[in-house]
Amino acid sequence: METKRIPFMDKDFLLDTEEAKTLFHKYAEDMPIIDYHCHIDPREIAEDKSYESITELWLGGDHYKWRAMRQCGIAEEFVTGRADEREKFRGWCRTLSQAVGSPLYHWSHLELQRYFDCTLPINEKNADEIFDICNKKLQSGQLSAKKIIKMSKVKVAGTTDDPCDDLHWHEVIAEDRELGCKVIPTFRPDKVLLVEGAEFPDYISRLGSAAGMEIKSFADMKQALSARMEHFAAHGCRSSDQSTVMFPCERMSEGECDGVFKKAMTGCEITERERLGFITETMLFLAAEYKRHGWVMQLHFGVARNTNTRMFAAVGRDTGFDRIHSSAPVESLAAFLDELDKTDSLPKTVLYSLDPNMNTALDVLAKCFNEEGVCGKVQHGAAWWFNDNLGGMRAHLQSLGEQGVLGNFIGMLTDSRCMLSYTRHEYFRRILCSFIGGLAARGEIYWDEELLGDMVKNISFCNAMAFFGLEA
Amino acid sequence: METKRIPFMDKDFLLDTEEAKTLFHKYAEDMPIIDYHCHIDPREIAEDKSYESITELWLGGDHYKWRAMRQCGIAEEFVTGRADEREKFRGWCRTLSQAVGSPLYHWSHLELQRYFDCTLPINEKNADEIFDICNKKLQSGQLSAKKIIKMSKVKVAGTTDDPCDDLHWHEVIAEDRELGCKVIPTFRPDKVLLVEGAEFPDYISRLGSAAGMEIKSFADMKQALSARMEHFAAHGCRSSDQSTVMFPCERMSEGECDGVFKKAMTGCEITERERLGFITETMLFLAAEYKRHGWVMQLHFGVARNTNTRMFAAVGRDTGFDRIHSSAPVESLAAFLDELDKTDSLPKTVLYSLDPNMNTALDVLAKCFNEEGVCGKVQHGAAWWFNDNLGGMRAHLQSLGEQGVLGNFIGMLTDSRCMLSYTRHEYFRRILCSFIGGLAARGEIYWDEELLGDMVKNISFCNAMAFFGLEA
Amino acid sequence: METKRIPFMDKDFLLDTEEAKTLFHKYAEDMPIIDYHCHIDPREIAEDKSYESITELWLGGDHYKWRAMRQCGIAEEFVTGRADEREKFRGWCRTLSQAVGSPLYHWSHLELQRYFDCTLPINEKNADEIFDICNKKLQSGQLSAKKIIKMSKVKVAGTTDDPCDDLHWHEVIAEDRELGCKVIPTFRPDKVLLVEGAEFPDYISRLGSAAGMEIKSFADMKQALSARMEHFAAHGCRSSDQSTVMFPCERMSEGECDGVFKKAMTGCEITERERLGFITETMLFLAAEYKRHGWVMQLHFGVARNTNTRMFAAVGRDTGFDRIHSSAPVESLAAFLDELDKTDSLPKTVLYSLDPNMNTALDVLAKCFNEEGVCGKVQHGAAWWFNDNLGGMRAHLQSLGEQGVLGNFIGMLTDSRCMLSYTRHEYFRRILCSFIGGLAARGEIYWDEELLGDMVKNISFCNAMAFFGLEA
Repeated sequence: METKRIPFMDKDFLLDTEEAKTLFHKYAEDMPIIDYHCHIDPREIAEDKSYESITELWLGGDHYKWRAMRQCGIAEEFVTGRADEREKFRGWCRTLSQAVGSPLYHWSHLELQRYFDCTLPINEKNADEIFDICNKKLQSGQLSAKKIIKMSKVKVAGTTDDPCDDLHWHEVIAEDRELGCKVIPTFRPDKVLLVEGAEFPDYISRLGSAAGMEIKSFADMKQALSARMEHFAAHGCRSSDQSTVMFPCERMSEGECDGVFKKAMTGCEITERERLGFITETMLFLAAEYKRHGWVMQLHFGVARNTNTRMFAAVGRDTGFDRIHSSAPVESLAAFLDELDKTDSLPKTVLYSLDPNMNTALDVLAKCFNEEGVCGKVQHGAAWWFNDNLGGMRAHLQSLGEQGVLGNFIGMLTDSRCMLSYTRHEYFRRILCSFIGGLAARGEIYWDEELLGDMVKNISFCNAMAFFGLEA
Repeated sequence: METKRIPFMDKDFLLDTEEAKTLFHKYAEDMPIIDYHCHIDPREIAEDKSYESITELWLGGDHYKWRAMRQCGIAEEFVTGRADEREKFRGWCRTLSQAVGSPLYHWSHLELQRYFDCTLPINEKNADEIFDICNKKLQSGQLSAKKIIKMSKVKVAGTTDDPCDDLHWHEVIAEDRELGCKVIPTFRPDKVLLVEGAEFPDYISRLGSAAGMEIKSFADMKQALSARMEHFAAHGCRSSDQSTVMFPCERMSEGECDGVFKKAMTGCEITERERLGFITETMLFLAAEYKRHGWVMQLHFGVARNTNTRMFAAVGRDTGFDRIHSSAPVESLAAFLDELDKTDSLPKTVLYSLDPNMNTALDVLAKCFNEEGVCGKVQHGAAWWFNDNLGGMRAHLQSLGEQGVLGNFIGMLTDSRCMLSYTRHEYFRRILCSFIGGLAARGEIYWDEELLGDMVKNISFCNAMAFFGLEA
Repeated sequence: METKRIPFMDKDFLLDTEEAKTLFHKYAEDMPIIDYHCHIDPREIAEDKSYESITELWLGGDHYKWRAMRQCGIAEEFVTGRADEREKFRGWCRTLSQAVGSPLYHWSHLELQRYFDCTLPINEKNADEIFDICNKKLQSGQLSAKKIIKMSKVKVAGTTDDPCDDLHWHEVIAEDRELGCKVIPTFRPDKVLLVEGAEFPDYISRLGSAAGMEIKSFADMKQALSARMEHFAAHGCRSSDQSTVMFPCERMSEGECDGVFKKAMTGCEITERERLGFITETMLFLAAEYKRHGWVMQLHFGVARNTNTRMFAAVGRDTGFDRIHSSAPVESLAAFLDELDKTDSLPKTVLYSLDPNMNTALDVLAKCFNEEGVCGKVQHGAAWWFNDNLGGMRAHLQSLGEQGVLGNFIGMLTDSRCMLSYTRHEYFRRILCSFIGGLAARGEIYWDEELLGDMVKNISFCNAMAFFGLEA
């Protein structure tokens, strides 16, 4: 049936129709990047960090890769431990060659090709050669943090920051007129919701210091949060991010919230109902504030963390032992959005679920909330984490197309800790062009090159810029 | 890989193999239509309604389209409001051109091609021209309700009717010997299950009037329902339809039901257990009656309605703010079907779920209940509402094929309020022929043209006719 | 678009790229089989059973086929009843020809081709001819149990056995030096978990007899189980299998368990909490014992059995009335695995879920538990039962590839009661080669024939041999 093998990950990688090729090469490929959600430390950029080795860069902090290596029975010493860098890299290359069908396979080869000009397939046989090529390039200084940003055409990068953060490094970066990239903070107030935790009083105290006030009440806490939002806004912040397992809708009076707050601050145990009420009111307050600032509210959910107790004790959090939580919060999320919408307090919102089964239900829910003059007010964010792969992105685009208006989509983000991950935007754009180009190639949509080309440009860059209220 | 672009939605639209083309053009295309479930007002047909404008026809009542327009930030005035018809239509065309991958895209172009002989792609640029073409045709009188039915070769249309309905318009239609289409009522007793609602006593009173009796007890209520079923049966009714969120299985004695009924009629509050018991017994009673009449029981579930409180207040129900309810009732549905089957009271049944994740579980469940001489006694109904699109139908067919015997499937229905929706049968048939033709083209099934051609004819028309006990 | 019809199920069946053909014909096709999980009665093999008719072989015990026939309205007499064998077979052939898209269609044709050298398509017209061809071959003695095993190149077959089983037939088979196949038992202690059942005391008494001791306490019960494991180990057992609906994590002291055990043995009713505690402790004990023996723990879940009460009364269990249970136990399963891992008591594990919606969540969960030197310690087992079909296997492979390291997969098992089912390994290998070959053909992975050929051989055979600790 098929006759000739498509070359391995060449310039037309994933572009499986002429239309896809046209859309990608003429419209998508050269668009700049807005990476509106990542976990890069702004200090790395501010100090224009250089990297010593590919092992550091690839295996220094990437729990996706660690998971894969452990599955192959590789000892922890060669994963997160102190083994020799070349040995570790060999283990990684051996692992990757077995990981066919994995996004790691594509990510790694894309990074190798784009940043290191190396088209070798990654496997045990080539491990040493690749190791040497990469390290030579890294040590030449051509791949410092700022150089990566420039060569990747990143125009905006949104970091993730605690409300207590002074945003010093953002200020430093802002002074660099050469970089050509805005590095803006994202307000992530997760810790203020952990009212039942032992660390709550200490956190509130730090929040007070950051806001230049003493926090004695629930009202004070809100005031401090508002003050920090002003600070973030002054540094270009355009959105918040919250990682949450649930969306309780237990309304509680200001007085009750204050009571819960005071119990928490004095180390008294609080009831489940008190906790849910406190979270409800705090989340509603925060959302209304985002709305007032014109910010985007990003909500991440569906994660169960630290599944493996033994490994949590050994190597800590964010090391590759998280999983999908299967209790989809669609019902409560619907109530939460409605509660905000009722009082015109619903900001522009992006929903990210870790559970791929929620795709259709989320897309349908999102489209129940709209605002005049806003395209795609409640977005179903790009396929996230365990779904951030070829199949996951295709399923996401298909569901978006079926339930929504695809042309409104704000597109891709890296959600990454690694500077090389910008190639994921390219990966996404190829999949997007394959998707839209395929529809046209099969006669399922009309081939209007200008219209579809604009759509591809919008989803690649312009929609997100407008959605986050940024200027190119 | 692929070389030539397939023409946009031409005669071979979606027919991606030679086998699919043969099956569609030789076997499916010319089959008449049985649209066993729709929401068309029979009065429109009886009075042979004519339509003034394409805006009225397309945007007058279609909440699918309204949702899409709102997502593009279009003001409600241009959606459900009183804005100029041409302006509204322009907004719709602009929206649709962005909605690639949406069923609306295909539905709209199919309707434009089949009923208006217009092959223009719908977009903002063509909006005015299309508006004029359509309105000219509509105003010429060539597209009255009856003319649409005739040109669409509809042999049977099943409307959806309250038990209190006198079925006057069905009688009027039945007298028209020229129409060539039976328009038969469907018994939809949803309101009798809302025992906890404030409107229950009033509804029961109306039901009594319709049945010519006073309803004083649970037994009376059942008697009145039976009387109305006789009335419906006399007007050709072959099935019921119920929209339900759940299938409780709380058995309750006749005496207890009577107590609940009387509390409800006198405005006393009833407990949750009483409510569930009442619903259980009423649903079991109704199902047994359907079985006795040889009717088909249609069950729709998995919907959460009126998600957006603000818009519900502004524009009311059925306006595009419903969503998928994620709590799948598979367990309770299984118990409900079993309870009926135990006493040989299970009628032929069609299950429609709004949650696409239920496909496999529903197909498997359905096949646990069979009856000698009946092909596919419990059917998993065609992909419904948010699933009624290319991907949804393909997933449905695949699951049906994997878990059941595809040749028994009763096929498509429109579930629509709009006369132009009959093209959805064509859309379905193309997808069906692509599915079966593809299996043969890939050598996965034996290409027995006669057998597969018959299968396609059966699924397109004959199976449903037999299932509903109708004669062609 | 496509031009020429692919021949029906010929040598290149499902091999849709040149790469798939190369991988299958050069690497997969000739590999022997390890069927590590089946339900064949070892006595059939020991006595080298011959079969009289294809009706007996195909319809004598296969509830998949019965389900399909009943859906076509065929009377039970012609399904599991005493109707004439030829008549039954005709009904089956008629049914199958309508079951396009069903795995039964492929399984049946593969078995017909491989064991009966018959390439006729199965349909009503060919029914008699096929019936005669098959029966002639069966009656010629060429297809006895042992001959089927030999011609299928089965090197290991794992039966499923109660701890009380004396494994006599395994001993008899082991003495046959000609067979070339190890038939090893699998330890299936399901009944020891049914502590609330009326049959529990009797079962415990039988277990005691088998272990040569009297069981008077929870400690005794565990001792008896350990003794039986020794017996199984001595007969080559390499794994256990448990069918479970849940993974409770209600820790209970030894004393409490003993109390529950004694209540159960004296017919006293036990509470739900007692039941869950007993199950928890027994499952943790069993798992730790498996670990100690180096066995694999197989866990099957997500089934609701005997959905149809009327048919259960008529034809009993395992007759085609089971279904998918929709309450996914991901959360409790995660806790169970973690509880074992904490104390280094987690054996190599295979997870099989009947709910296809769990694919991604299961794959992600599985990869949270690893062990140095073990490839793929916690496996997501091959698509099971209602998922054991073309679409189900593809979805399983895709999810495995996305979330894990595909090269570690232990591949296929038949889970079958029928000797002819070994062709399912061929079916799986074709799908596997299509999957991996397709990735290479589309340029999504590097075409390294040696590496991918080895991968295919490993997944087809070698990985499972190593995982179960067997030698070729």
